Amino acid sequence: MKRRDLLKGSLAAGALALMPRVQAQGAPQNQPGLGRRYRNLIVYVYDGFGWEDYAIAQAYARRRLGRTLALERLLARYPNGLINTYSLTSYVTESSAAGNALSTGVKTVNGGVAVHADGSPLRPFFAAAKEAGKAVGLVTTTTITHATPASFAVSNPDRNAEAQIAEQYLAFGAEVYLGGGDRFFNPERRQDRKDLYAAFAQAGYGVVRTPEELARSNASKLLGVFSEGHVPYEIDRRFQGVRVPSLKEMVQAALPRLAAHRNGFVLQVEAGRIDHANHLNDAAATLWDTLAADEALEALTAFVDRHPDTLLILVSDHACGTGALYGTGRSYLESSLGIDLLERERASFEFMGRALGGSPDAAQVKETFRALKGVALTDEEAERVVRAVRERVFWPEGVRFGIQPANTMAWAMAQRDARRPDRPNIGWNSGQHTATPVILLLYGQGLRFLQLGLLDNTHVFRLMGEALGIRYQNPVMSEEEALEILKARPVGMRHPEDVWA
Amino acid sequence: MKRRDLLKGSLAAGALALMPRVQAQGAPQNQPGLGRRYRNLIVYVYDGFGWEDYAIAQAYARRRLGRTLALERLLARYPNGLINTYSLTSYVTESSAAGNALSTGVKTVNGGVAVHADGSPLRPFFAAAKEAGKAVGLVTTTTITHATPASFAVSNPDRNAEAQIAEQYLAFGAEVYLGGGDRFFNPERRQDRKDLYAAFAQAGYGVVRTPEELARSNASKLLGVFSEGHVPYEIDRRFQGVRVPSLKEMVQAALPRLAAHRNGFVLQVEAGRIDHANHLNDAAATLWDTLAADEALEALTAFVDRHPDTLLILVSDHACGTGALYGTGRSYLESSLGIDLLERERASFEFMGRALGGSPDAAQVKETFRALKGVALTDEEAERVVRAVRERVFWPEGVRFGIQPANTMAWAMAQRDARRPDRPNIGWNSGQHTATPVILLLYGQGLRFLQLGLLDNTHVFRLMGEALGIRYQNPVMSEEEALEILKARPVGMRHPEDVWA
Repeated sequence: MKRRDLLKGSLAAGALALMPRVQAQGAPQNQPGLGRRYRNLIVYVYDGFGWEDYAIAQAYARRRLGRTLALERLLARYPNGLINTYSLTSYVTESSAAGNALSTGVKTVNGGVAVHADGSPLRPFFAAAKEAGKAVGLVTTTTITHATPASFAVSNPDRNAEAQIAEQYLAFGAEVYLGGGDRFFNPERRQDRKDLYAAFAQAGYGVVRTPEELARSNASKLLGVFSEGHVPYEIDRRFQGVRVPSLKEMVQAALPRLAAHRNGFVLQVEAGRIDHANHLNDAAATLWDTLAADEALEALTAFVDRHPDTLLILVSDHACGTGALYGTGRSYLESSLGIDLLERERASFEFMGRALGGSPDAAQVKETFRALKGVALTDEEAERVVRAVRERVFWPEGVRFGIQPANTMAWAMAQRDARRPDRPNIGWNSGQHTATPVILLLYGQGLRFLQLGLLDNTHVFRLMGEALGIRYQNPVMSEEEALEILKARPVGMRHPEDVWA
Repeated sequence: MKRRDLLKGSLAAGALALMPRVQAQGAPQNQPGLGRRYRNLIVYVYDGFGWEDYAIAQAYARRRLGRTLALERLLARYPNGLINTYSLTSYVTESSAAGNALSTGVKTVNGGVAVHADGSPLRPFFAAAKEAGKAVGLVTTTTITHATPASFAVSNPDRNAEAQIAEQYLAFGAEVYLGGGDRFFNPERRQDRKDLYAAFAQAGYGVVRTPEELARSNASKLLGVFSEGHVPYEIDRRFQGVRVPSLKEMVQAALPRLAAHRNGFVLQVEAGRIDHANHLNDAAATLWDTLAADEALEALTAFVDRHPDTLLILVSDHACGTGALYGTGRSYLESSLGIDLLERERASFEFMGRALGGSPDAAQVKETFRALKGVALTDEEAERVVRAVRERVFWPEGVRFGIQPANTMAWAMAQRDARRPDRPNIGWNSGQHTATPVILLLYGQGLRFLQLGLLDNTHVFRLMGEALGIRYQNPVMSEEEALEILKARPVGMRHPEDVWA
């Protein structure tokens, strides 16, 4: 074929109009029902959790810990399927639009908590459940006011308005709030100097700030805030002695309090930092937060076994970065070593970043990577990390990885020689969310023969409604309407520019 | 926390032994049965197909083509689950060990076709089916002698011994072989000068080499070989006029010939180049081969609808590179544009590589990308492609992407500015296979209430056996035995070093 022929059609391609030919992102077609009711509902969100994350955790548990994940056992034996996660106008969702789909049953534009793009509020499922007499709990490893828990309880046009969401929580009055986010409750850290802790205490909450206080408290209503921002990663809690409760400990504090309520309860548990670790391209942090989530899952399934009037819905809201074990060595025969090398990692990039401070030198960087990631960086790699931290010059360039120093740290310790693997063969697609379908799993009595298949994430709302006998419909916005609104206010409504969307 | 505390435990980490604590990669626990028999069996392998590939194809079909994938409809309505894909000694499989697991029901070491690491042959399922009187067909877009089809019919310690596998096919005597690989049949291209085409003709096969010959032939047994190596990508067939049959056309040629047999048939269809396109980090080639696979799927489900004594098993053998649409723009609001921009792509990197030849200049590179990928490269990006093609200096460095010129081409056209997206926001984890669980789906009468969940890939062998009433057990090798053998012959048995494993 001649070069001229080859290039034919180039003009046509250049003139291509890029308006979508079909606006609607497709209607959900598959709407299986439970066929029964439950008294209690637990929604367990693995935030930013994709199938590659699952594969690594499953392999690590089997190979290094000699155990089978609770999640693996459930996937083999209980109804599970996949959910599409796209938001109203974007094939890649962020956590608030994903949370809204689960909690309100309708698609929304990325960025707002249980609201449509025109600001009209939606009724989140836990608000309806509360009105129906259910006790309510929110437990997470992110700030308690973060998008995923918030979208189940309150409405706010701006997911980043967490100081305000903390006040909305007070008014909402759930029985249990456990997570991070001191800066949104503490009068010394809030801009408006309001003392939310005092206000919660006055409203009858036991307010706890440490694992010991959590263990000691016998308050029936509980606000636990264990860190300034997000709760530190499990890897740092476990190996660096960071003093926060584990997700399992938080779950174990929440369950008996909620179970004491006569009319049953709804509880959202979020393993929220799997997402963050993936944003940072931090394999070991992702792994250990997934393993910690699995321990909490065991506590939850044990509760369901003792309280068979409880339905557990386990769901991811989207994947993030697709951090994956990839094949290495001849015939990929060295691939499993990547699982073994993870055992040398003993801290998150977040922890290392704090340890390095704002102006580390290359020697400090090398020593920190050697001690905490088990990796010997070259001088050049260490210099790249120094430049990323000091000057925010990231490596490699481009929007996929060049977002924050941790992405450069991940790239610096990437495998260099497939023939002599001495670094984990785990890599990321990017530091952003992706479009893949993600896990949906049900655990509870009477569900063994339910077939789920591929669902829309909004169907989770209907499953929750059927489980508790709470049915209502939030107003639907069309994609066309939403795009019109977005056109009219390109910088109007504040959108999260947080690297952890 | 002080820096000294932070670095504590570093010695322990350095001394860590990396032998796996638990050798066994875990026994399959979930073994659902069909509860019924079928006359015909079709196994449709999507090679190297992961959930991110699915998400992009689903989105493109909805948004640019205004249609719903056949696969999306099946995922919503028919039994589907996930399979673990690891091989006997590696958490990342290649296609022959994956094919062996499906076809022989036991885990093997990466690299051999229906053999154990000690060379002992395993009995592939289609060999057993043939003995039981079934007609046999193999249809693929790779070389017909490639690992995935081969592992269903013959044994060979070396998956790369394709010239030999072509002779094994002659002896095996399946009714239909359709795919690529002229160099393994053509006397002018085979090292031993044997004329396999003549030999097949003598054995009663109609031998066809072009789409027209395929359409015209009325032979009851068919060998169709349509390209020197793998069958060119769908994107090149569709937009660049490359003359090969589509996968659907091959399927439509195979089905009536096989259906004519009194005792029923077994057919493997492979959408084999989804994997290759992912190895090359070629989003548009991946997309169009997935869309072509979907058209073939429609032909297959239509056949099943007319022949309800047929079971269709659709399965991926592993994922590859996790090419994924990632979030871009504020609140990821610009993400869907990546789907639209794919429409500008009109050729594969493979096609472009041939067009550029071995010594292109930067101007040629820029013009080719503009015309065939709809992307305006910068001078620096074009220079990087020139260096990759001419000097095999790849970009970015490292083992994840630095494998072949196409990986550099993909990186060269990566999105640079998230605020003004003008290139598809699709990226890869690597150019290698990954460890994620992948799709398993069943289509056939009487299966609506079957729940699959997470399975081991070896269970597909048992499902096939139950479907046709053909039961046998291949010998199991332990991971320890296999590791001993691998230790003894580190470079003994030839392993594929093909970039397309």
